[in-house]
Amino acid sequence: MRPALDHVATGTLFGVALNYRGLLESRLQEFQQAPYQKPPVKPVLFIKTPNTRNGHGQPVVYPQGVERLQPGPALGVVIGRSASRVRAEDAMAHVAGYVIVNEFSLPEESYYRPAVKAKCRDGFCPLGPEFVPAADVQDPHALTLKLFVNGQLRQENTTANLVRGIPQLIEEISEFMTLHEGDVLITGTPEGRVDVQPGDVVEVEITGLGRLANTVVAE
Amino acid sequence: MRPALDHVATGTLFGVALNYRGLLESRLQEFQQAPYQKPPVKPVLFIKTPNTRNGHGQPVVYPQGVERLQPGPALGVVIGRSASRVRAEDAMAHVAGYVIVNEFSLPEESYYRPAVKAKCRDGFCPLGPEFVPAADVQDPHALTLKLFVNGQLRQENTTANLVRGIPQLIEEISEFMTLHEGDVLITGTPEGRVDVQPGDVVEVEITGLGRLANTVVAE
Repeated sequence: MRPALDHVATGTLFGVALNYRGLLESRLQEFQQAPYQKPPVKPVLFIKTPNTRNGHGQPVVYPQGVERLQPGPALGVVIGRSASRVRAEDAMAHVAGYVIVNEFSLPEESYYRPAVKAKCRDGFCPLGPEFVPAADVQDPHALTLKLFVNGQLRQENTTANLVRGIPQLIEEISEFMTLHEGDVLITGTPEGRVDVQPGDVVEVEITGLGRLANTVVAE
Repeated sequence: MRPALDHVATGTLFGVALNYRGLLESRLQEFQQAPYQKPPVKPVLFIKTPNTRNGHGQPVVYPQGVERLQPGPALGVVIGRSASRVRAEDAMAHVAGYVIVNEFSLPEESYYRPAVKAKCRDGFCPLGPEFVPAADVQDPHALTLKLFVNGQLRQENTTANLVRGIPQLIEEISEFMTLHEGDVLITGTPEGRVDVQPGDVVEVEITGLGRLANTVVAE
């Protein structure tokens, strides 16, 4: 039997911004300008705080006074043992497994450093439906992600388009901070994010990981 | 007897950027320019991840390959009961007490949205030496903060200079996210941050809260 998601993915939720090729390319021009001057040379991280944790089948609250809300389909990588200064070639040994993440956000003009206010609303980070051990996923860099809204396919991409693959992310992040058992790397959400409304059923499907379903509800 | 710090300050560590008047004023001109256009109208939050937690008397590691490291003396506010949509006038009832925080950072050009990489190194957030219950602090907005490096006074300011006081912070943050029991609001660090080196003894003293001491060590 697989370990329960709530028992393995207990740590910090790290988001990685701009980690799909199509998204990064669409933003390149902007990064030539002030204050960035150049595209990010390292992974751009953000945190989904513990209050954002949510589960399969649970409601996601559309905040009052907010104009737009966007789901963010993403592959979550669950760390299995502490990683500090791990080289890319050794990184996969630190991965316990995978889980679908729907990284809800309020859209922002700047992608460079996402704001806590846009990313960290209560319940804005559903994970599920279950933890899938690494041994059960043949190639995490060849998984199809699909986003459905009310049953309609609205986004489709593949983890083959990650700018930084999982080994590189673990190498570059563990270079400056320790990743702990139970931490989750949210490897990025692809370009083409869509708006959702109260009443919408939002589902993320990833090859071999199942389908994570949530309903957006009015506050 | 006072409850142990490790038992009460167990939650998320929220940093507030630009929350001392002198610091905000020194940055105002920059905020007129792209991409900000205007000074922040809401608290600018950042997260100190769990790997940054550190204690009184513990070493703080000066990371290899880093040019500058700066301590950040700050008053930490420990949440005592969950706060969601709390008005300023009711906010203090959600405060359990206070603790000194030394919010170490690598200096950055942009203060607007601090980078995880600059703020979230292992051990970069000492808290201590002890939790002080709210009842034992007469006025948290009239406390003197002092930073000593090797016994020399290097920074001095007062929580009277907070841009947003504690009630306003709790109101404005709890408007969009729930603050939970055990969360810590790091109310900001004043202007005039100083560089420290391996071997330095760094102490933060706040009126009535004691003195938090850490030694910077080479990696």
